[in-house]
Amino acid sequence: MRIGPSQEEVRRQNLGALLRYVHIHGPTSRAELTSELGLNRSTIGALTADLAGAGLVTEAAPRETGRAGRPSLVVRPESSRVYAYAFSIEVDQIRAARVGLGGQVLDLRVDERPHGLAATDAVPLLAEFVKELHHSVPDDALYVGSGVSVCRMMRRDDGLPRLTFTTEQIAAPLSAALATELGVERPVVAGNAGDVAALAEHARGTAVGCDNVIYLHRDAGVDAGIIVGGRRLSGHAGQGGQVGHMVVQPNGRPCSCGSRGCWETEIGEYALLKAAGRDPSTRTAGMLTVVDAASRGDASAQAAVRQVGDWLGFGVANLVNVFNPEMVIFGGTLRELYLAAAAQVRSRLNSMALPAARERVRLRTPQLGEDAALIGAAELAFEQLLADPLST
Amino acid sequence: MRIGPSQEEVRRQNLGALLRYVHIHGPTSRAELTSELGLNRSTIGALTADLAGAGLVTEAAPRETGRAGRPSLVVRPESSRVYAYAFSIEVDQIRAARVGLGGQVLDLRVDERPHGLAATDAVPLLAEFVKELHHSVPDDALYVGSGVSVCRMMRRDDGLPRLTFTTEQIAAPLSAALATELGVERPVVAGNAGDVAALAEHARGTAVGCDNVIYLHRDAGVDAGIIVGGRRLSGHAGQGGQVGHMVVQPNGRPCSCGSRGCWETEIGEYALLKAAGRDPSTRTAGMLTVVDAASRGDASAQAAVRQVGDWLGFGVANLVNVFNPEMVIFGGTLRELYLAAAAQVRSRLNSMALPAARERVRLRTPQLGEDAALIGAAELAFEQLLADPLST
Repeated sequence: MRIGPSQEEVRRQNLGALLRYVHIHGPTSRAELTSELGLNRSTIGALTADLAGAGLVTEAAPRETGRAGRPSLVVRPESSRVYAYAFSIEVDQIRAARVGLGGQVLDLRVDERPHGLAATDAVPLLAEFVKELHHSVPDDALYVGSGVSVCRMMRRDDGLPRLTFTTEQIAAPLSAALATELGVERPVVAGNAGDVAALAEHARGTAVGCDNVIYLHRDAGVDAGIIVGGRRLSGHAGQGGQVGHMVVQPNGRPCSCGSRGCWETEIGEYALLKAAGRDPSTRTAGMLTVVDAASRGDASAQAAVRQVGDWLGFGVANLVNVFNPEMVIFGGTLRELYLAAAAQVRSRLNSMALPAARERVRLRTPQLGEDAALIGAAELAFEQLLADPLST
Repeated sequence: MRIGPSQEEVRRQNLGALLRYVHIHGPTSRAELTSELGLNRSTIGALTADLAGAGLVTEAAPRETGRAGRPSLVVRPESSRVYAYAFSIEVDQIRAARVGLGGQVLDLRVDERPHGLAATDAVPLLAEFVKELHHSVPDDALYVGSGVSVCRMMRRDDGLPRLTFTTEQIAAPLSAALATELGVERPVVAGNAGDVAALAEHARGTAVGCDNVIYLHRDAGVDAGIIVGGRRLSGHAGQGGQVGHMVVQPNGRPCSCGSRGCWETEIGEYALLKAAGRDPSTRTAGMLTVVDAASRGDASAQAAVRQVGDWLGFGVANLVNVFNPEMVIFGGTLRELYLAAAAQVRSRLNSMALPAARERVRLRTPQLGEDAALIGAAELAFEQLLADPLST
């Protein structure tokens, strides 16, 4: 039941709206804030003063504009002072970054993820990264919290990936480890890799302004970050978006989940390498070799790309019928497969998706590259600050 | 960009929250409203006075409680005075009702929908219904607007259903026809049959309190009303939820949409009747005969129900992996198929959906029965009133 907010809540919402604006759009003049936020000049002035007093923004005269009249002051996020830690636990690597307000990656550490290492066991390694990163943090800097992107797959000792569900089990131990390391307790928010990448592309990448987005993310499996009406689809128990386990081929290849013909097995590296007559144990590197060979005219590689690309389009068409999205983004190693097989994907979309559902959908690759997971994880952390800027 | 509301907006939100509460929950004491809405007693008193002044609620002493002390006044929605018109354009019939605030069907008209009649051509027939219904409306009654549930299928002259997309094209001509008939202009909101039924079950049926719901609706095709995080999934162009056209069987039966192996063809009446060795032109009546025969032990009918029920479970499992819903509801003629084949559906769910995605999902049939479309359509109309109670 939705109840109207108090005066204090109104002020908090306005502070959050202003801080979010400069966090997303960068330095902004007071004049632009006035028109974009629909608040009057004196309110913008008062809100800016509050945020500056808390050390979250600075105000300064703009560079020479060449125009007559007193120029509007420019409000900047304190990107070098206000920061979050962002983590990414992937199938084959773990990463940690210090990310400033405004989304700038200030510092970064990357390492391999050992085979057989459960996501929860990565926590001490991430804490070690933070210890290193923390050496270069200025004394007056403000730590606001952390976000972590967790892949739902782990690599077993035999090299094969396995499905695990640890997203929710990461936040509490990581929060405790960071509190010990940093001497201050701040929230840690965990999200699935697909969700987090979708958040990043929605905030700062190719999906800015799109309210209905499907971000397909392939690491070892295929996950989706789905945005419906501007909000993340998380599902009843945080397990939504497992599009890789939609069955597209009844009685198809066995999948690690125990089912058969799951979408992620039909568009996977193994399927592509088998179709191209190559060694399926070469995995991602082998997949890229096939895509490369296809681009240089190798007939068997081209046939394999067409076959797997057809299955890629098959699943996309089903999702388009269900969601009627504005944009589908091909992330992780799906980027290369999509670029090589865009014609097959489009063809399946045209033959399988209803015209009304597909006619305005745009197919895209990510704009943010490898940093998307860290940028998205930082967004999870900043969400707390933006909801109530003066509480931190 | 979300900005804090003004004092006037706060009052509007509170008025809407109070009116929504009695609209959904029925007569409620001031004491309960105070605790449920988190507002103090004097605010509840003032809001109630405003709503009573506008003729939307009444206040009265409750029946004898047997307890000591002054009893809390009870606030009731003015169900017989404040009403909406609700319409449902289905494949084989059209319906119109006058629905009172609080969701009571006060009066009702039903007729067959002639074959070949486009949904837009049903508008004059609905206006004729309204003319009849309007005779019995008290002089002081308040008409707040209309809602219409539109099935995306029409029956052709040859008796076969065909996919059309007219939802958005209904609201404007219906609004104009009603303005002529009633002499007053009020908004008309149109929704897909699945969406509208989902809204009804979410507000007043089996899905009350569930924020992640998939309502599967079969009329001639299969549509879904999907609720994600408490809000309807509509998609970028209002075309979301076309789950009937997910392809589940590559190279399966041809579908009227031009594709093959769509879910709705594999779980359709035609598929069931063919599998049972019966005349497929008997459609819904024939389907019910097969379900009935299966329940009485007919082996070929049982085999057909198992086969089609298996495909029903197949699609449900895929949707559960994608959405991680709390509840799946089997509406329209899927109700009978689900009840006959619940074991197959559950078996597919267990073998194909990931444990984490499926473990808390509840499978249900609708609670509201045939009236769901009209009750949901009325909810579409009342949404306007509840958003700003004193503007009407």
